[in-house]
Amino acid sequence: MIDPHVVEARVSPEGRLRVLSKSEIAKLLDSGSSGLYPVFRNSALAVLNSGSFLDDGKELLERYPDFDIHIVQEERGIKLEMTGAPAIAFVDGEMIRGIREHLFAVLRDILFTSSELVENPSFDLNTSEGTTDAVFHILRNAGLLRPRVEPNLVVCWGGHSISREEYDYSKRVGYEFGLRGLNICTGCGPGAMKGPMKGATIAHAKQRIRGGRYIGISEPGIIAAESPNAIVNELVICPDIEKRLEAFVRVGHVVTVFPGGVGTCEEILYLLGILLHPDNAHTRLPLIFTGPASAAAYFQQIDEFIRITLGEEARKLYRIILDDPAEVAKAVAEEMRNVKQLRMQAKDAYYFNWGLRIPQDLQRPFVPTHEAMARLDLHLDQPRHQLAANLRRAFSGVVGGNVKADTIRAVQKLGPFDIHGDAALLKPLDTLLEAFVKQSRMKLPGKAYVPCYRLAV
Amino acid sequence: MIDPHVVEARVSPEGRLRVLSKSEIAKLLDSGSSGLYPVFRNSALAVLNSGSFLDDGKELLERYPDFDIHIVQEERGIKLEMTGAPAIAFVDGEMIRGIREHLFAVLRDILFTSSELVENPSFDLNTSEGTTDAVFHILRNAGLLRPRVEPNLVVCWGGHSISREEYDYSKRVGYEFGLRGLNICTGCGPGAMKGPMKGATIAHAKQRIRGGRYIGISEPGIIAAESPNAIVNELVICPDIEKRLEAFVRVGHVVTVFPGGVGTCEEILYLLGILLHPDNAHTRLPLIFTGPASAAAYFQQIDEFIRITLGEEARKLYRIILDDPAEVAKAVAEEMRNVKQLRMQAKDAYYFNWGLRIPQDLQRPFVPTHEAMARLDLHLDQPRHQLAANLRRAFSGVVGGNVKADTIRAVQKLGPFDIHGDAALLKPLDTLLEAFVKQSRMKLPGKAYVPCYRLAV
Amino acid sequence: MIDPHVVEARVSPEGRLRVLSKSEIAKLLDSGSSGLYPVFRNSALAVLNSGSFLDDGKELLERYPDFDIHIVQEERGIKLEMTGAPAIAFVDGEMIRGIREHLFAVLRDILFTSSELVENPSFDLNTSEGTTDAVFHILRNAGLLRPRVEPNLVVCWGGHSISREEYDYSKRVGYEFGLRGLNICTGCGPGAMKGPMKGATIAHAKQRIRGGRYIGISEPGIIAAESPNAIVNELVICPDIEKRLEAFVRVGHVVTVFPGGVGTCEEILYLLGILLHPDNAHTRLPLIFTGPASAAAYFQQIDEFIRITLGEEARKLYRIILDDPAEVAKAVAEEMRNVKQLRMQAKDAYYFNWGLRIPQDLQRPFVPTHEAMARLDLHLDQPRHQLAANLRRAFSGVVGGNVKADTIRAVQKLGPFDIHGDAALLKPLDTLLEAFVKQSRMKLPGKAYVPCYRLAV
Amino acid sequence: MIDPHVVEARVSPEGRLRVLSKSEIAKLLDSGSSGLYPVFRNSALAVLNSGSFLDDGKELLERYPDFDIHIVQEERGIKLEMTGAPAIAFVDGEMIRGIREHLFAVLRDILFTSSELVENPSFDLNTSEGTTDAVFHILRNAGLLRPRVEPNLVVCWGGHSISREEYDYSKRVGYEFGLRGLNICTGCGPGAMKGPMKGATIAHAKQRIRGGRYIGISEPGIIAAESPNAIVNELVICPDIEKRLEAFVRVGHVVTVFPGGVGTCEEILYLLGILLHPDNAHTRLPLIFTGPASAAAYFQQIDEFIRITLGEEARKLYRIILDDPAEVAKAVAEEMRNVKQLRMQAKDAYYFNWGLRIPQDLQRPFVPTHEAMARLDLHLDQPRHQLAANLRRAFSGVVGGNVKADTIRAVQKLGPFDIHGDAALLKPLDTLLEAFVKQSRMKLPGKAYVPCYRLAV
Repeated sequence: MIDPHVVEARVSPEGRLRVLSKSEIAKLLDSGSSGLYPVFRNSALAVLNSGSFLDDGKELLERYPDFDIHIVQEERGIKLEMTGAPAIAFVDGEMIRGIREHLFAVLRDILFTSSELVENPSFDLNTSEGTTDAVFHILRNAGLLRPRVEPNLVVCWGGHSISREEYDYSKRVGYEFGLRGLNICTGCGPGAMKGPMKGATIAHAKQRIRGGRYIGISEPGIIAAESPNAIVNELVICPDIEKRLEAFVRVGHVVTVFPGGVGTCEEILYLLGILLHPDNAHTRLPLIFTGPASAAAYFQQIDEFIRITLGEEARKLYRIILDDPAEVAKAVAEEMRNVKQLRMQAKDAYYFNWGLRIPQDLQRPFVPTHEAMARLDLHLDQPRHQLAANLRRAFSGVVGGNVKADTIRAVQKLGPFDIHGDAALLKPLDTLLEAFVKQSRMKLPGKAYVPCYRLAV
Repeated sequence: MIDPHVVEARVSPEGRLRVLSKSEIAKLLDSGSSGLYPVFRNSALAVLNSGSFLDDGKELLERYPDFDIHIVQEERGIKLEMTGAPAIAFVDGEMIRGIREHLFAVLRDILFTSSELVENPSFDLNTSEGTTDAVFHILRNAGLLRPRVEPNLVVCWGGHSISREEYDYSKRVGYEFGLRGLNICTGCGPGAMKGPMKGATIAHAKQRIRGGRYIGISEPGIIAAESPNAIVNELVICPDIEKRLEAFVRVGHVVTVFPGGVGTCEEILYLLGILLHPDNAHTRLPLIFTGPASAAAYFQQIDEFIRITLGEEARKLYRIILDDPAEVAKAVAEEMRNVKQLRMQAKDAYYFNWGLRIPQDLQRPFVPTHEAMARLDLHLDQPRHQLAANLRRAFSGVVGGNVKADTIRAVQKLGPFDIHGDAALLKPLDTLLEAFVKQSRMKLPGKAYVPCYRLAV
Repeated sequence: MIDPHVVEARVSPEGRLRVLSKSEIAKLLDSGSSGLYPVFRNSALAVLNSGSFLDDGKELLERYPDFDIHIVQEERGIKLEMTGAPAIAFVDGEMIRGIREHLFAVLRDILFTSSELVENPSFDLNTSEGTTDAVFHILRNAGLLRPRVEPNLVVCWGGHSISREEYDYSKRVGYEFGLRGLNICTGCGPGAMKGPMKGATIAHAKQRIRGGRYIGISEPGIIAAESPNAIVNELVICPDIEKRLEAFVRVGHVVTVFPGGVGTCEEILYLLGILLHPDNAHTRLPLIFTGPASAAAYFQQIDEFIRITLGEEARKLYRIILDDPAEVAKAVAEEMRNVKQLRMQAKDAYYFNWGLRIPQDLQRPFVPTHEAMARLDLHLDQPRHQLAANLRRAFSGVVGGNVKADTIRAVQKLGPFDIHGDAALLKPLDTLLEAFVKQSRMKLPGKAYVPCYRLAV
Repeated sequence: MIDPHVVEARVSPEGRLRVLSKSEIAKLLDSGSSGLYPVFRNSALAVLNSGSFLDDGKELLERYPDFDIHIVQEERGIKLEMTGAPAIAFVDGEMIRGIREHLFAVLRDILFTSSELVENPSFDLNTSEGTTDAVFHILRNAGLLRPRVEPNLVVCWGGHSISREEYDYSKRVGYEFGLRGLNICTGCGPGAMKGPMKGATIAHAKQRIRGGRYIGISEPGIIAAESPNAIVNELVICPDIEKRLEAFVRVGHVVTVFPGGVGTCEEILYLLGILLHPDNAHTRLPLIFTGPASAAAYFQQIDEFIRITLGEEARKLYRIILDDPAEVAKAVAEEMRNVKQLRMQAKDAYYFNWGLRIPQDLQRPFVPTHEAMARLDLHLDQPRHQLAANLRRAFSGVVGGNVKADTIRAVQKLGPFDIHGDAALLKPLDTLLEAFVKQSRMKLPGKAYVPCYRLAV
């Protein structure tokens, strides 16, 4: 149980966003339906909760009902004033500086989304190009796109709820990444999203790398369940999960997957959905699954599920390396050189993978209502990349039902989601989900897991 | 006569703007009516002409007819490729780095204006608040607004065509500013816009001030006639002259005026138009006129013109200090402390003067067509701040007719502007303009001046 | 067992020492009796062994008999060329940069000691003031003395051979130090010398502290047994153990002691020897012992040994805090404020504790020959600070016999040291050493311990 | 006439030297014969006089008789407290930061000379190698020797007393150097020692070169007459003029000579003395004389004097380029590439020209007493490099008699120096010195020149 103590504080901005116009301040203070206060307040609360062991967005919001945050204009710039804030964000009364940076990153991205994507859409989100353009602008505005830097960004996917052994393994892999000058990009929560950053931090210190990048990409729906750890020094809040996933594959150069649960599966299927698309036959995004020896069974289950549902072709898109952090890091470093070659040949930017085609199926936000979940098209007789996209949605819904405040409430009210489809598909899905439950991969340990889904097997 | 030699080159970006989206590149390459190529090309040419002695926008464009510039996307970021570029921007085949920065500043601001102000207006330019908001965003996007810094920015206004003695004096004043840690903001051309920066550069070196700011604020219409000098390390291109003038008074903390010509008068009247407005009775923007002893007559003429047209009240808004650089710098440093006090009391930002009310009269772009010039309301029976605004327009038209390519062409075709009004106003105006002609303040020396106006005295 | 593989390499300098004169290079290449090659070669080998689990200086030297290192003068500066170097210092063929820095720190300090202390003694090492002056110059030459910085340096003493639990505890304490902006100074080996640095590194990352200091102070005799961990970003090699100990107390502001063995006891007795000296009655150097709950017995044994030998007065000089990292960090932070007050009152420098009087007894190098050990004056009827100094020597000898190459060889040849004294002293000493043997605190685990001493009880 | 006003002040250190030991502070406060106070006080006074127009060391010392300066130890480091200091070093009560840096550079070098060269000589100054080693250590201790940087340092020699036109020309040349990224090294006084630095400062600003180097090399005897200008950001005080001259040729890559007087001749002859030495036949140090068109006669006189005294061979060692700053800069840039090639071939350091042999004749300090001047061996029948060395001494004596306090006093007491030698040598020497007197090159303008020498023609 975390310290329920709360504090008052007033903090100055850190990082890039520093000055706001009068109208921006007004928007952020506006609690009305068109105002940004609610989403800002909740995301800020999530950020302040960094380091606590809590993966339930609803529970977080309920625990700090009196949390309030305001922007104040002063002669030297803006400040944030807050009451009822989680004490965990502070050390002897001072807010941890990394968390302070996160608060202002949240503010920056919420404003950007509001002014450029919502109120006054500069981008045509009904086209694939328009959506990609929006993702580009979000990332550029966040300062994430750096020219003149060679490919060196490893995306680390994996669960927030993993065993101590898996966590230590992810640290060791991150350490080997860091020794090789690689930077880390994760979903910025605990578990496999934190371990690699910690390991890389130590290795970067040994290599005297001062500008090591620890990129966290989140979205308002998930951030409450996966509070960014304070090592993250570049935080981006995308407007929804699909843009968050697109952000990963546009900026990352190599993707590694650690043990995880349904969220990790969602990510894997998202990526396979892209790579299986015929338009991407010419390109590649290297993908490596890795974990300690004890995770062998886990990856075998995933591998088997992919084989059954998406076929042997899909299995060629990734490698599995067990129990060998240095080997993983060497393989990633090798792939970085390949990616560099590819981009040079294609005259494509190192900092943004324009060459990858992302089908609209994977770009359109999927909101896991009971109806949407029931309507999912889970049949084997469709192109593999479409099936991957549909399976992605199924896992996305389960993630929501597990950790997102809104979806948890809906499931509490309406009961578990019903998921329909071919038995040949639902059967292995059921096996996989069952295994996750048994292995405590659905929620942080210590809580009994009540499934938020029902498979019509 | 400058070296007419031209070169080919390919340069990488400097400064903040560094990555572009595909659609932005497309817009910049588009020569069509909705494309940005023409304005970008002409502004880029102006920037490359830095350091040459040429103050005629039309002449510049005609001298380099084959100049062409293209954006190229490469794996490490964008580059600019150009042919037929003025050799003066290069040293032994390498473009001067300050000029390279300017090129990318131009690109940044043209894109911003296009996407935020033109295509998809985020700001209501029909209101005073909306216009100010636009200016704020332009300046913030250019990185000009820095929080946590105490007031230290001196705006230096004055002519591009001044005597050697006046130029040396402006250097000495800049030197004294620099010794006191003050930063410089000018219209970024030659003459009184360059001298203070040069002096401050030497003083900043002696004071080991590494982040000295040399801010240049221009606009596409004037930049060709007033190529930014390469010392300028923060260049902003505002969309029109009115937003440029607003930018000066929003970011500057104290304004100094060196000898100049009609452009300088335009600036003085703009500022008096603001300060005379009843809404600004409570606030202040310190204003100091200064020059060498030989400029005494010049300032006396201006002072007299203001007395006759705007009255004694207006004369209280400025001080005249002659032939004493250290005294000017001390007075400015003193005023900085006053400004700081004022802003603290008002909780107004140091980096942007929200407290000043700028009437729409002074915000609405004035295009000096023959018709508009003929319609100017130059009568004494109007509020002083309105009269100042109208006089400002008259001077603005003469500036255009002297140095801006489009307006020069119109005057060549249609003859000089006709300006009407009260004899009691036109008479002193005529005297003042006559004096400028005699003192070679209309154009760079060595050219006979043909007036672009006719006063209906 | 570490990887016995060796590599060839050529590395450029990192850090402050960068250029050498021709005569300096000649000295470093000179293997003769007046040359510096042997000590440089052996210390360099120790540095390259960073991260391996080996605490026996003799074993290290024997494992890499062919290791050879040369300085090469090139047009861009000097380089180091080596063959037969431990592969562990390299990642994919590149030497870890932190280790590269250490190599050049070793070189810098060996040269300094040679030119200023040995060949051409600038300092009178027969006086206390002269010795302190020498320590000051060594530390200044190493860049360790930084003015204008408030007291924030915690010395962390403790064993290189500690349990996993104790190690994890030292990391947690270091983490809490780092969150409070404190910097770490240790003897720079493994165990309790590494844990606090690792923890502080993570905390500094979260607090965005870029210039975090991880100071390691070693000497040629011990470095082979306690290879500096690569996080150390300021390494100093003092000429002997006494100057090393003086360096700790001159630059550290607060001292914390983690569980350890005889080396840790040596350090505690050294400090008590100073603090018990009448001349230091007016000043203080805060001292805190800390460890996990499981270390309670260990600290009780030390505490008891101090009580019996040095009396209750000595016990007032330290606090014991068990199992509470945050509490330790708060106490240290509090003491930092006290130290700051004291120094301000005394006008003493924050960066060097001139105010502390160190008796020559504790400054004169003690070489633990069999004869010197046999002659130790271990009787109760002497002033407490002298007894502490003599006990310090006894522990120092045992440290040598355990881990230093020369001393190990002497013990192998001549048998264990004989230590004489009052039974009332030798008895509790015997008890303490026995406990250390049982708790595996004498050597890294996995080796049977053969005592290098015989107490004449 | 400068402002005779004096001020009190207390300043903190700037730059590298930052902490002092107790014994160092004692030495600096010691006014006794073995103490450093007198030389420190006088050099500090010279530094504070920066920017004034005074070239007479004796006059300076007499003008500020009450100037006093003390070191104070505080908890944050040392400070300097002074009374009776020249007000010219201050702006509104604050000492110019560049001058503050100079004060601490003076302190650093006086301490170094005292501890390493005087008290406790580490270097054998009776050998050429030992002297060079001493120069190396002085420069390294001052932070001047930077590895990994390609040759880019132009030494600019020339007079402190030159015409406005010559001064402006030296600025223009410095500007062209700066545009090409070249750094400047001078004797750090006014005139041709300041102009190139000013020009380079502006050009470096345009090229956004932040670490531009403006190196000044002085010595205690000359500094009072040639106060360093505050642009100098690396100041070194060598112990005597011969080490100062050696410092120039060891760190400079190309030497340029502007118009000057006897000091400039001394420098030219010093360099020719080296280059004419048979041991240096294989190497080179490029040498360029340059000035405005109006300086043509001046360089012709020098050229002729060299031809007559040292022969045609000597004339091949330099080029004369008149009235073309860009051409000079291009030639220097070209020579930089040659020097780079040479050093790479010779594996000689870029940052210190070990390859040049400097005969002891040119290294041994020459003190221009009346006796020494009378004994000068000025005959044609000696090797050219020896003759150059002897002529160098003659000019050195005249420099002393013109501007150095001690020598001025001796001449006032004993009358002018008598200089003997071959008429074939003394005749052209007389012609040259006469020309300098006529051209006001002996002293700053406005003072009648009374020769301090008598040629026994």
